[in-house]
Amino acid sequence: MKVVRTIVELPELGGEVGLVPTMGALHAGHRALLDRARAENDAIVMSLFVNAAQFDDPADFAAYPRDEAADLRMAEEAGVDVVFAPSAHELFPPDFETWVEPGVAARGGEGDARPGHFRGVATVCLKLFQIVRPARAYFGQKDAQQVAVVRRMVRDLNVPVAIRVVPTVRDPDGLALSSRNVRLAPDERERALALPRALASARDAADPVAAARAALNGLEPEYVEVRDLGDATVLAAAVRVGAIRLIDNVLLEGAIG
Amino acid sequence: MKVVRTIVELPELGGEVGLVPTMGALHAGHRALLDRARAENDAIVMSLFVNAAQFDDPADFAAYPRDEAADLRMAEEAGVDVVFAPSAHELFPPDFETWVEPGVAARGGEGDARPGHFRGVATVCLKLFQIVRPARAYFGQKDAQQVAVVRRMVRDLNVPVAIRVVPTVRDPDGLALSSRNVRLAPDERERALALPRALASARDAADPVAAARAALNGLEPEYVEVRDLGDATVLAAAVRVGAIRLIDNVLLEGAIG
Repeated sequence: MKVVRTIVELPELGGEVGLVPTMGALHAGHRALLDRARAENDAIVMSLFVNAAQFDDPADFAAYPRDEAADLRMAEEAGVDVVFAPSAHELFPPDFETWVEPGVAARGGEGDARPGHFRGVATVCLKLFQIVRPARAYFGQKDAQQVAVVRRMVRDLNVPVAIRVVPTVRDPDGLALSSRNVRLAPDERERALALPRALASARDAADPVAAARAALNGLEPEYVEVRDLGDATVLAAAVRVGAIRLIDNVLLEGAIG
Repeated sequence: MKVVRTIVELPELGGEVGLVPTMGALHAGHRALLDRARAENDAIVMSLFVNAAQFDDPADFAAYPRDEAADLRMAEEAGVDVVFAPSAHELFPPDFETWVEPGVAARGGEGDARPGHFRGVATVCLKLFQIVRPARAYFGQKDAQQVAVVRRMVRDLNVPVAIRVVPTVRDPDGLALSSRNVRLAPDERERALALPRALASARDAADPVAAARAALNGLEPEYVEVRDLGDATVLAAAVRVGAIRLIDNVLLEGAIG
């Protein structure tokens, strides 16, 4: 496995390349993305870049967990060919000034909660697609609105890449895996379980949004909404537990893929 | 020569492809772009698309000259392999919503005179680069700020294409060729010559902007400015002659290429 820090060092990979964009702090959810990419492509590139441009909150950016040694071990185990781990300067030099501005897909939900977040996501994803030129790129269902924004961007700007979505991986207690979960205290983690439980219980309700809101067991949602991913619709919600913001979603219609 | 109207019909072209994006109404300036592309690439694609998204003025869009039969003749003579002439709906379907937003390069000059113009230019160019995947794309020096915006976009978003600039082609009287020139009445055309003359006379002045303003022979400039193209700086100006807006520029430093 090759680890490269700059664009010019990236090797030419033969055949079809699968790209798994990550911000590091890898967990079993990322592993599922890597395994799917490994199965469907001739070579895989994993990017590892904590993208400041998509953090609306500098404190969240500073606190985002980083453990590159562990990330590289998981990437190696998963059969990654190249890890692309650029500096902030490599992707966003000081005079960077051209942004990808998403539209309706970026409104509501995470877009309203985190101003500028999806501009940062869309821009860094477009850049990675240009740099790596993958046939397929892999995203987790958990970041459902990110999937919607990236798919719209790819369609609107005619980017030659297929966006694949991999179902959310959960701990045995039902909590969706997230790099931010390590920051939950034990009692916070217990309270956080109301989020996946409320979403699961609301899936088949006549009004899933109202049903999920009613089942959150005292957690105050930032939003609960139905989101279209192109090939599926999901019931998505965000809650704050202590200092940690958590998001989750469940499939309502269609299929994740 | 193949003429295609939809993205899916575009043939796979072997080797390195040169792209010449045009809005039709081809003149000898476009021919210079096509000739350069022909000399440097294995195959050339010419796009022919009057991009409503880059017209701030609907009347200008409606009046923009269109003569596809003549354009196709010139393309054939120039050895174009594929003309890509999509409908507006093919590139900008009604629910299109993801835009490329340029920054500083789009300010001043044409950017201030034509709000939204460079957003439209940057977006359609990125789309064409994704669709055609050229090794090189060809632009005229005359649209100097367009060159600056497209080069910044390509650099910022890591688009794998080289931007080539071809020197402005002029009529024997010095007027830069433009598709809009056909709309000038004879007396307007005579007055318009003050623009290239003022720019040429100001090139070597200590203050080229002031010198050009002073030499415009009564034409009122929208702007006169020095613009950085990355590898060259130019002295650029815009004037209105009757109903027609004309732009022009001359090299100050560096080399056009």
